[in-house]
Amino acid sequence: MLSKTHTKYIQSLQHKKFRDESGLFIAEGPKVVLDLLNSRNFICKEVFALNEWFDLNENIKSIHTGTLFVEVKDFELKKISALSTSHSVLAVFEKRKQDSGLKITNKLTLALDMVQDPGNLGTIIRIADWFGIENIICSEGCADMYNSKVVQSTMGSLGRVNIIYTDLEAWLQQNKKIRIYAASLEGVSIKSIGKLHEGIIIIGNEAHGISESVMQQVNEKMTIPKTGAAESLNAAVATGIILSHLV
Amino acid sequence: MLSKTHTKYIQSLQHKKFRDESGLFIAEGPKVVLDLLNSRNFICKEVFALNEWFDLNENIKSIHTGTLFVEVKDFELKKISALSTSHSVLAVFEKRKQDSGLKITNKLTLALDMVQDPGNLGTIIRIADWFGIENIICSEGCADMYNSKVVQSTMGSLGRVNIIYTDLEAWLQQNKKIRIYAASLEGVSIKSIGKLHEGIIIIGNEAHGISESVMQQVNEKMTIPKTGAAESLNAAVATGIILSHLV
Repeated sequence: MLSKTHTKYIQSLQHKKFRDESGLFIAEGPKVVLDLLNSRNFICKEVFALNEWFDLNENIKSIHTGTLFVEVKDFELKKISALSTSHSVLAVFEKRKQDSGLKITNKLTLALDMVQDPGNLGTIIRIADWFGIENIICSEGCADMYNSKVVQSTMGSLGRVNIIYTDLEAWLQQNKKIRIYAASLEGVSIKSIGKLHEGIIIIGNEAHGISESVMQQVNEKMTIPKTGAAESLNAAVATGIILSHLV
Repeated sequence: MLSKTHTKYIQSLQHKKFRDESGLFIAEGPKVVLDLLNSRNFICKEVFALNEWFDLNENIKSIHTGTLFVEVKDFELKKISALSTSHSVLAVFEKRKQDSGLKITNKLTLALDMVQDPGNLGTIIRIADWFGIENIICSEGCADMYNSKVVQSTMGSLGRVNIIYTDLEAWLQQNKKIRIYAASLEGVSIKSIGKLHEGIIIIGNEAHGISESVMQQVNEKMTIPKTGAAESLNAAVATGIILSHLV
């Protein structure tokens, strides 16, 4: 049985302010919760699940001894869920400390400039995980990686990709030795670039693209060849296409 | 000034049942509305817009003489909008008759098997428009192309891509002369297929992939090479990657 106070505190984690204050966030659904539980990057505080979930995950309590497991009823789960259709499990995790000693030589790194749509950010994290991209640098204007919609659309990849929020312009200036590529509506075709073993790839805002100050740091603009009429591609789709050609 | 009855009738178009009964649907936002107005494929019945939108589109009334233009206040637009942040314009269009004499030789055609997420369907329509794909065949279990979220995420491409809802299995059987490719987690790498001048590319459901009966019609399974750990890619992202390699 969930108390009113407990219910309210979990609901409050749907707001960035309370996530920042508490250092906690929510993940929902069997796949996302299990992937984060299995990841060594996140500490799980509490799991709220239906009886059926515990039946399917019998040994989970003995593996995660530091976690509080609470069996809840369907109506209780609905109350604390941020989803329109709640799944069988919801968990509260501790946010991760930002990695300060990031190594970006000899690998590809994604940099996101004001990617504001939570679904896009989550999908980009999932794409990075598919293509083995270890690090994503987010400008401070990007959506919060701990927003429920972001967590949900990563489909569990959140535990396998390192995400850093920073002043993107300053960060790029500090990393000038690495070649910087920009996803753009103009520039060289991604098909003519070939495989890249090292580089920073910048993806811009959904409506306005890459900001001017960030664009000034770029060494090469690249574009996805168009054969039809659409003005642009969704930011996550563009990221997927670019990585599929350069990785 | 919008009457209560008028407001209710526009709100009702957010439900498939009423869209089917009336043969009408809603589009919102300057880009989407103008793209559909400029498309010859849709007849516009009514446009509800703020004064500022009319200032920006002075000649619009003289071009679209069959359309009713209504200036509304911000609070009225909010009432009829399906978006959390309403834009400056909302329009009611007539649904399109399905094209019965589809030609799919000498071109690539997308076929969607139970793509249920409206955002994914809209994004796939936008991707098809980017790559010059003329036709998308949707199984009857796909999201409704006239759902507000679909219309919104096409970003205007709805007017430039031909979309047909049909019994996908039967349709594939009728088109056996065209080679059928399936997006799958196994199969040959999309990088080894090369450019395709003709073919049907099937994209499956977000959670369950391509259904068994549809898969039986497939000539070749193809996959996007993975170098990381994510289990799968978002359906729209996968579509974008596949088309970028095959078109």
